[in-house]
Amino acid sequence: MTELAVHRTAIPGLLVIDLDVRGDNRGWFKENWQRAKLTALGLPDFGPVQNNVSYNAAAGVTRGVHAEPWDKLVSVATGRIFGAWVDLRPGETFGAVVTREIGPETAVYVPRGVGNAFQTLEPGTAYSYLVNDHWSLAAKDSYTFVNAADETLAIDWPIPLDRCELSDADKAHPRLADAVPMRPRPT
Amino acid sequence: MTELAVHRTAIPGLLVIDLDVRGDNRGWFKENWQRAKLTALGLPDFGPVQNNVSYNAAAGVTRGVHAEPWDKLVSVATGRIFGAWVDLRPGETFGAVVTREIGPETAVYVPRGVGNAFQTLEPGTAYSYLVNDHWSLAAKDSYTFVNAADETLAIDWPIPLDRCELSDADKAHPRLADAVPMRPRPT
Ligand SMILES: Cc1cn([C@H]2C[C@H](O)[C@@H](COP(=O)(O)OP(=O)(O)O[C@H]3OC[C@@H](O)[C@H](O)[C@H]3O)O2)c(=O)[nH]c1=O
Ligand SMILES: Cc1cn([C@H]2C[C@H](O)[C@@H](COP(=O)(O)OP(=O)(O)O[C@H]3OC[C@@H](O)[C@H](O)[C@H]3O)O2)c(=O)[nH]c1=O
Repeated sequence: MTELAVHRTAIPGLLVIDLDVRGDNRGWFKENWQRAKLTALGLPDFGPVQNNVSYNAAAGVTRGVHAEPWDKLVSVATGRIFGAWVDLRPGETFGAVVTREIGPETAVYVPRGVGNAFQTLEPGTAYSYLVNDHWSLAAKDSYTFVNAADETLAIDWPIPLDRCELSDADKAHPRLADAVPMRPRPT
Repeated sequence: MTELAVHRTAIPGLLVIDLDVRGDNRGWFKENWQRAKLTALGLPDFGPVQNNVSYNAAAGVTRGVHAEPWDKLVSVATGRIFGAWVDLRPGETFGAVVTREIGPETAVYVPRGVGNAFQTLEPGTAYSYLVNDHWSLAAKDSYTFVNAADETLAIDWPIPLDRCELSDADKAHPRLADAVPMRPRPT
């Protein structure tokens, strides 16, 4: 059992959350998001309207790097991932990278304009996240993507990408030099 | 791929949702809750403030029957469950039972006052749900519980309960005759 805590990272607004996971004879239980407790600890009151789940059959499935025009709270329901986050907002920290291995005991708050990516480290990994705006296929053209294999970012993927399962879309994303910076959420 | 759809059940307000699960080379992806699409199909705009995940190590883990003073949208991130829902609101349908096997392709909306329970049918089942009020240990005394083994309910658990993993609290819940009915959410 860990105490619920919220930590800053090298990317402004990107927060790492230690969750309180309670084990017993059945398995475990966690509050994956709890508005009152987490806003008291400094998480934005981000108002999710959508919960997405992706199931990743094998170790080495890699998704991203995607920055969409909304905030995300990402987490692992079961399994383990190597997460990578890239600041794609214009400014001094453009291109900054944070990486971290996470399992069910950690969540990450990814503000709008920060690219999100992960690679599964175990087969059968279920990835779950909350977002505060509705996705649409039509709007997809306006999102900012960067290639997970970008040489400048030099993300240290545990499993080399040429042995990984990626979508065709993710294989085709531009290098950092060609990525279009995304403005942060207006305040 | 199934079309997103919302179905009524024999318990008023208990809704079964067919989710649109999209398979590909990596695994699958689903919108587990999407406020705009689901409210258009008749799901209440229930305003979740908490997301809980329970991990169930073995097949036969059984949790419930719990009616708490909030609404829930329950789902399976990976694995399979036998779900059982019991109407614990005062009135004609008090004691009505709905059961159904569900996997990641289905979600169930459980209104306040309807008891929720499930038994895992596969090891490593991750169960995820959204609720529209904050849980607290102090408030637990005011919740309504009924025993999963109640003879009147006669829930047809696929795995006999004496071979299942339950919490001590769940083993001690009252029979239906002694359960305190819970008022529905004021409208
Ligand atoms: C993001 C999203 C996708 N979809 C559909 C489109 C495809 O048919 C399928 C998979 O979509 P992808 O864009 O390939 O998803 P993925 O590569 O897994 O990316 C998602 O997960 C990682 C996240 O970083 C990213 O925000 C999100 O786009 O699901 C939806 O129906 N709703 C959605 O919200
Ligand atoms: C429901 C809940 C529980 N907890 C803690 C209390 C215990 O230390 C631990 C497990 O709690 P239980 O009451 O044993 O959970 P469980 O039996 O799994 O019941 C839950 O899942 C099934 C659901 O039907 C039910 O609403 C919910 O109470 O987690 C929390 O910290 N927050 C919560 O929201």
